[in-house]
Amino acid sequence: MNVVDLNCDMGESFGAYKIGADEELLQYATSVNIACGFHAGDPATIRKTVGFALERGAGIGAHPGLQDLIGFGRRNIDISPQEAYDLVVYQIGALSAFVKAEGGNVQHVKAHGALYNMAAINSALSEAIAEAVYKVDPELILFGLANGELLKAGRRIGLRTASEVFADRTYQQDGTLTSRRLADAMIEDEEEAVRQVIRMIKEKKVLSRQGMDVGIEAETICIHGDGPNALHFAKKIRNELEQANVEVKAIGQMKKERGEATNV
Amino acid sequence: MNVVDLNCDMGESFGAYKIGADEELLQYATSVNIACGFHAGDPATIRKTVGFALERGAGIGAHPGLQDLIGFGRRNIDISPQEAYDLVVYQIGALSAFVKAEGGNVQHVKAHGALYNMAAINSALSEAIAEAVYKVDPELILFGLANGELLKAGRRIGLRTASEVFADRTYQQDGTLTSRRLADAMIEDEEEAVRQVIRMIKEKKVLSRQGMDVGIEAETICIHGDGPNALHFAKKIRNELEQANVEVKAIGQMKKERGEATNV
Amino acid sequence: MNVVDLNCDMGESFGAYKIGADEELLQYATSVNIACGFHAGDPATIRKTVGFALERGAGIGAHPGLQDLIGFGRRNIDISPQEAYDLVVYQIGALSAFVKAEGGNVQHVKAHGALYNMAAINSALSEAIAEAVYKVDPELILFGLANGELLKAGRRIGLRTASEVFADRTYQQDGTLTSRRLADAMIEDEEEAVRQVIRMIKEKKVLSRQGMDVGIEAETICIHGDGPNALHFAKKIRNELEQANVEVKAIGQMKKERGEATNV
Amino acid sequence: MNVVDLNCDMGESFGAYKIGADEELLQYATSVNIACGFHAGDPATIRKTVGFALERGAGIGAHPGLQDLIGFGRRNIDISPQEAYDLVVYQIGALSAFVKAEGGNVQHVKAHGALYNMAAINSALSEAIAEAVYKVDPELILFGLANGELLKAGRRIGLRTASEVFADRTYQQDGTLTSRRLADAMIEDEEEAVRQVIRMIKEKKVLSRQGMDVGIEAETICIHGDGPNALHFAKKIRNELEQANVEVKAIGQMKKERGEATNV
Repeated sequence: MNVVDLNCDMGESFGAYKIGADEELLQYATSVNIACGFHAGDPATIRKTVGFALERGAGIGAHPGLQDLIGFGRRNIDISPQEAYDLVVYQIGALSAFVKAEGGNVQHVKAHGALYNMAAINSALSEAIAEAVYKVDPELILFGLANGELLKAGRRIGLRTASEVFADRTYQQDGTLTSRRLADAMIEDEEEAVRQVIRMIKEKKVLSRQGMDVGIEAETICIHGDGPNALHFAKKIRNELEQANVEVKAIGQMKKERGEATNV
Repeated sequence: MNVVDLNCDMGESFGAYKIGADEELLQYATSVNIACGFHAGDPATIRKTVGFALERGAGIGAHPGLQDLIGFGRRNIDISPQEAYDLVVYQIGALSAFVKAEGGNVQHVKAHGALYNMAAINSALSEAIAEAVYKVDPELILFGLANGELLKAGRRIGLRTASEVFADRTYQQDGTLTSRRLADAMIEDEEEAVRQVIRMIKEKKVLSRQGMDVGIEAETICIHGDGPNALHFAKKIRNELEQANVEVKAIGQMKKERGEATNV
Repeated sequence: MNVVDLNCDMGESFGAYKIGADEELLQYATSVNIACGFHAGDPATIRKTVGFALERGAGIGAHPGLQDLIGFGRRNIDISPQEAYDLVVYQIGALSAFVKAEGGNVQHVKAHGALYNMAAINSALSEAIAEAVYKVDPELILFGLANGELLKAGRRIGLRTASEVFADRTYQQDGTLTSRRLADAMIEDEEEAVRQVIRMIKEKKVLSRQGMDVGIEAETICIHGDGPNALHFAKKIRNELEQANVEVKAIGQMKKERGEATNV
Repeated sequence: MNVVDLNCDMGESFGAYKIGADEELLQYATSVNIACGFHAGDPATIRKTVGFALERGAGIGAHPGLQDLIGFGRRNIDISPQEAYDLVVYQIGALSAFVKAEGGNVQHVKAHGALYNMAAINSALSEAIAEAVYKVDPELILFGLANGELLKAGRRIGLRTASEVFADRTYQQDGTLTSRRLADAMIEDEEEAVRQVIRMIKEKKVLSRQGMDVGIEAETICIHGDGPNALHFAKKIRNELEQANVEVKAIGQMKKERGEATNV
């Protein structure tokens, strides 16, 4: 039977500033990426979000981002691999302490925003991020863009990885995402988005913008938590997956059942 | 034989800004309090400082402070106990990840600056800080001002604690420090400072400004890392302690040898 | 004829974080206090808010706060008068540049949150804030709590001032606000709040919690911009004032018509 | 007679963190670029630095940088032109308020670090920065890299500009700097550096790395304020210029004497 994880960004509030519908989205997501205080989030928000996620049994992930609160971590900053290593270690640690204080475990690490995008195409940054994750805890699962550099770096160092796909984005012939700067980057039609995701899961293929199939592995699907339609689409995709006989399950549980272990 | 720990603040640089003579001070300190990025410090500085400390075999401590880089954590901020809990969990976590990545262990936690001072006289803040430390790792040793509230809160929750004294400060009849706002808060004479410390260690007494002896426990001595005289005084106090047959040793090692265990 | 200014906090968004209903509130407010980037706000938000305010003809004020984004400037920080001076000069300057770039003028300065509250009872802080305002531009109008220290300091240095009252707060016999820590600090009943304000304007009196009238000057009324009821209450108070024959007008225009000038 | 301005970065300290030898450098610099609190600097440091500069009669400039304290504004951030506009307006305003409070005037604006470098080759960013300067105060002089985009944008909008050269950097055939990533970017030999600068001033030419002369205008020379050799080289270059009959003078004074006016 096919199985997939649904992940969603959470814990992005900051002080008096509230963002997202975290509790509602936890009805549909099986894994959550919790902001760690650099691009978003703060200690109180981390504590609360960890609490919600543990109550719901979601897989908990650190979501380290660039040190750019004003830009929400979405602007590329020309950081060195050493800087990437340092900020990932720091942020995993901060999140982990709250999870440990509540008696839970961190399941995965997903880089945020510009850090995620830069890593996907930069092998030196990816090596640094993978090393940071591995040295803090080699049991952590590293999320990365399907067919991107971060997944490769994670595998090389011996981490379990999760190949991530996007329901509402189009793909290029090399298996990577169409840039948002291009007109046809987004799939606006929800039905088409759902069909693309189900095909990626069941056939491990996606039709590229160039009109040919390309191989892709869909271990976890990114659900966006913001936008007016976020909750609706999260619910829809979860329902449609279940109707298509795709089991929705946290990535850590999935890998455990499959007997995937790290080389620790 | 008498034994004492010498602790020193470290890792207070930030980006291009350098503070302190960390490597030199590591010749004399047996435990180090590493800034965690709120009042001072940054991910790269933490990594480097942890590396130095592990090389020298010093006991490594988290040094959480208020979220006030511009004020170096020295200005009182009217935080709630919940806020204190959250910022301590976060900062211990961030530091711990770097220590874990290098294969070491965190020995202790010492609150910084205004957080330390507010906690010493505020039992609600102290309870929150002690709970934060305990929930992240009940094996951690909590530092606190001799005769202050934080030590009491730490003992109540079941943490091992370290009673901290200051060589160059005068004491009141209730066993706490003379406020820096008063004229005779500091002991300027180095010989007198050394004599006071040695008496605190050997006789568990200090002569208060009111002229009567008061009981005090000196498990760890704070050595200041800044000021023109810091290195000189660190060297002097270490030498004088050894000549007075006081063994200088990291607090964690000391407690292990004494068989002190947490109630974990 | 009686006349009063209605002021409202605005421009408190930060990066991706949105707060407040600024454009809607501008239908009712005659003066706006724009956050300057320390406790809230950022350069883009300032620019947009200044643009809205100029379009609507509202009096524009700088709203300097403590350097505490995570606490939204609402937590007391133990700053020195010199620090207060510096942060007020800086923030007035930053706001002023956007106003100048759009061809407008800054009308007033209102300290935010904890800075406002600390200044109201601390004459040294108030002197420093008043001096900062005066030295940057002696034409600026300084807002302060009715009967508080900041108003007095402003008058002493030669600034025009605006005595501010709150519709929904109760008053003490000395003419200051009942602390929010006490049960009866807030007036929940809207009709009572409106009556209190109209009496303050027309009779220059308010009934204290102790049951006796106390003198008060209501030159500007603070309308809260947050809370579910903010827009509704802003509209209500404006309508009721107009029905009670109280003219609602920006404080700068009011003082100009009255011929009040600074001693510049 | 030949004349040139010597400019130097100042006011880069932050809270407890001290950088630079500002007062000593003021013996040699005729214009100072004061950090405005984004990449470095803080309100207290700005106030003090403005005070020193006014005492010495130096031309005062705003030195706006990227919002990246941890990176000291030296890392490229992928900002939009609108973001560049906003952060330049904000920072000029903040600095200007301190200058105004002390009775002085701001002479110029020089972008810092990565913002300076990005603007030199990006005309959209340069347009935005030039517009920000012009709208805040069209009398300000805009500094920019000789032959770079920022100078061109400044001239187009009607600002007076200052073409800036570096004594210790080598030049390319197109008149721009050799990238620091290349081996021969720096001129290590002080005598050669001095000769290059004097030739740029007197002959308006520089020998490119490609071996041919290229035209260059040297209105202001950048003196670095950091590094162990900074004070020594500042003194040397000033002395050598005076011995070569080059008058050293603040750019604003120079332009005033030449009768250069804005088109205001």
